[in-house]
Amino acid sequence: MENKKENFSEWYNEIVESAGLIDKRYPIKGMNIWMPYGLKVALNFDENVRRLCDAKGLNEVSFPLLITRKQLNVEFEHLKGFEKQVFWITKGGTDKLDEEMSLRPTSESAMYPMFAMWIRTHGDLPLKLYQLVSVYRYETKHTRPFLRDREFRFFEAHTAHRNYQEAEAEIVEYLDIWKSLSDILCVPYVLHRRPEWDKFAGAEYSNAADTFLPSNRSLQVATFHQYGTNFSKPYDITYVNEAGEKEYVHQTTYGMSSRLIGALVGIHGDDKGLILPPDLAPTQVIIIPIPSEKSDTLKYSMNLEKILSSKGIRARVDSRDSYTPGYKYNDWEMRGVPVRIEVGEREVAANTATIAMRVEKGKKTVGLKDLEDSVRDSLRRVKEIITDKAVKQMKKIIKEAAGLNDLIAWKGPSLSYWCGLRECSDHIEEKSEKVCLGYRIDVESAGNCVVCGKEGRLATFSRTY
Amino acid sequence: MENKKENFSEWYNEIVESAGLIDKRYPIKGMNIWMPYGLKVALNFDENVRRLCDAKGLNEVSFPLLITRKQLNVEFEHLKGFEKQVFWITKGGTDKLDEEMSLRPTSESAMYPMFAMWIRTHGDLPLKLYQLVSVYRYETKHTRPFLRDREFRFFEAHTAHRNYQEAEAEIVEYLDIWKSLSDILCVPYVLHRRPEWDKFAGAEYSNAADTFLPSNRSLQVATFHQYGTNFSKPYDITYVNEAGEKEYVHQTTYGMSSRLIGALVGIHGDDKGLILPPDLAPTQVIIIPIPSEKSDTLKYSMNLEKILSSKGIRARVDSRDSYTPGYKYNDWEMRGVPVRIEVGEREVAANTATIAMRVEKGKKTVGLKDLEDSVRDSLRRVKEIITDKAVKQMKKIIKEAAGLNDLIAWKGPSLSYWCGLRECSDHIEEKSEKVCLGYRIDVESAGNCVVCGKEGRLATFSRTY
Repeated sequence: MENKKENFSEWYNEIVESAGLIDKRYPIKGMNIWMPYGLKVALNFDENVRRLCDAKGLNEVSFPLLITRKQLNVEFEHLKGFEKQVFWITKGGTDKLDEEMSLRPTSESAMYPMFAMWIRTHGDLPLKLYQLVSVYRYETKHTRPFLRDREFRFFEAHTAHRNYQEAEAEIVEYLDIWKSLSDILCVPYVLHRRPEWDKFAGAEYSNAADTFLPSNRSLQVATFHQYGTNFSKPYDITYVNEAGEKEYVHQTTYGMSSRLIGALVGIHGDDKGLILPPDLAPTQVIIIPIPSEKSDTLKYSMNLEKILSSKGIRARVDSRDSYTPGYKYNDWEMRGVPVRIEVGEREVAANTATIAMRVEKGKKTVGLKDLEDSVRDSLRRVKEIITDKAVKQMKKIIKEAAGLNDLIAWKGPSLSYWCGLRECSDHIEEKSEKVCLGYRIDVESAGNCVVCGKEGRLATFSRTY
Repeated sequence: MENKKENFSEWYNEIVESAGLIDKRYPIKGMNIWMPYGLKVALNFDENVRRLCDAKGLNEVSFPLLITRKQLNVEFEHLKGFEKQVFWITKGGTDKLDEEMSLRPTSESAMYPMFAMWIRTHGDLPLKLYQLVSVYRYETKHTRPFLRDREFRFFEAHTAHRNYQEAEAEIVEYLDIWKSLSDILCVPYVLHRRPEWDKFAGAEYSNAADTFLPSNRSLQVATFHQYGTNFSKPYDITYVNEAGEKEYVHQTTYGMSSRLIGALVGIHGDDKGLILPPDLAPTQVIIIPIPSEKSDTLKYSMNLEKILSSKGIRARVDSRDSYTPGYKYNDWEMRGVPVRIEVGEREVAANTATIAMRVEKGKKTVGLKDLEDSVRDSLRRVKEIITDKAVKQMKKIIKEAAGLNDLIAWKGPSLSYWCGLRECSDHIEEKSEKVCLGYRIDVESAGNCVVCGKEGRLATFSRTY
């Protein structure tokens, strides 16, 4: 296997396939096959998204994949270059279609004409919807699994509210959901207010969660947009308020994608392979029987699987008889299973199980009555360890720049004061290839712009994916 | 609401929207919006599909939506008219694509080139995969929600085996899965061997499950295809057997779609609205507090919800205060919730709950300690009642034809002996508009063909969706 530290990019490309997440050999660039193991990780994530969204009163819907040119034209007003990113269907069978239709690049233009029909009075608000779908972008840049695909899994929440304040409150709710998800992913992040020129077209402002890969590049993993009335006006989404007057709704969106799978692969993995967060691992505990002539280690293993499964732990016996235990250890380490149980004749004789973690050396042997607790404890430990490691890594990668030279010298992300002007961030980009991710939202700290010296706030500059 | 008996078609079109399953107003013909309530029914169904498939050793994957013309060309060899049913992408952004790509109409041509890479030796077999995706057909006929859409939810299992017998055994497994699903849907069916000219292009044979709607038309709800080596040869899917020789794999598929949602709507509903099978109902028990000045019926209702939810029953309080209990009863009857609990001051005072079923008159009042059992019992009863009713309906609709005149006189499906020749079934179609669904698989009964008088087997003739 490639060495992660020395060649992150090659290591990453290898691991996504060898761990069984995807197969890249599908004949269309940027469109990969989700293999059973990778798909289970994604579905486990979706299940958590649904649980958290439902608890916040968001309702799941599913809009059609196709969007007519007429629908999209409203959005093209906002963003001229957008059309270039869209796949177009021009033929049905052998007929030329009267109107071209696009594959959804995102669903504003699919949803908002319907919002205009659904919303009549203040009693219809807030309207809070989300969907889990695939989206399509005609990427001309180099593609990379999960990080830049032409087809990717997407979560998009769209809400409509009576006023700006209520829309603002929704964005706070989004952050709650995101915080829970980042905890499940064990992926730390920094929140930025994107610069004006980098916000989503049509947004009042865009907040984004960025994480950082060992390549020292940032990866946008979630976005939270305040649309104000910028979409409700062109799409004519109005409601009658308590006073009987017609008003435009205020809207927000929250987006995430299968980039998150890329983030967890890149951040947690090591030279042995993947390391999966226990909450998302398809198999949390792999049980490996060590063949023995004295005792039935397979039968005993099956019993352990039964005990753990009945407690809601995703445990599985590797019963393949054509592989040695050593081969199996490596195989499951490569696939990132958090906890391993070894069953030899000693364990069978003493009614015990020997537990090992993916992320720490050493094993412990426990009696069956302590099995569930010990396994849960090990899963918790794995989660703690990989979270701590990821947080430390991120802190190490992001360096505070003492000045412009310092900022330029360090190839990774830099923290620095910035006045907010594009010419200053352009100057930085020119000298360092690092773009401005925006002001840090979580810190209020004033200082002098690293370029022009005028008053500024703390911002992050980074090369990005 | 429309009268189901008198005008099934209008009743159906109305109910799918008024019960909140879908919204048909999306601006593309045959592509509808899955509303929260309808989507939950579909997701509950998917969850059951996953559980049953996983138990049979089928693994879930997700293949890209797009298929190149080159990939599809292999399949066009089998089926000349197929190209007419496909949507084609010809542009990415403003670029004309080098090669046209289609939206998946089904995934043989996406999957099988990969099967050829994945399968090497007999140890790689059986390969058993499935996916839950949306598929796209350029329908030129009149569309109807769930029954004939241009975008619909689809289940497709694809397996590869060492020989014909093992492929045959897989089809038996499919039938097990389907039987469990039809039980969950409370939808009865008849199994047919499709006539040669109506089998899936490239299949050795196609078996299909057909159900019958109150319109007296049949609806194909599941198909099970034996491909033999008809796909493995053009796609070159081979394996090395135990003797070291190269052999072609034998393949099968199993398909189902969101037509099943159409089937349960059409079969179970009545003039009050939808009736949902308890296993699929998003809300199994709706709890309605009757406002009272003497007691807090809402708080008491919330407690019932908590008790039932903790037992894994999908219960929900309707706490809307702008609607009367009567309005709410009608509303939830329309949405097909199987069981209703009414909470008035009498129930609060006596620590009881009054339970009503969607499908039977009468109520019963039970003490809290019997709540869970009584609710489970009511859910079970609803399932029994709607299943029995559906079976009786189907038996009534399908009539045994005493002779050709009899067959022609009855507009609904007819059972009759048939020799297997196309000219005989064409004759029937010409006279009655009923097509041959094929021989009944489940009955072995010989008799004289209703047209030519030669030896034949029992077959069904029906107008179809």
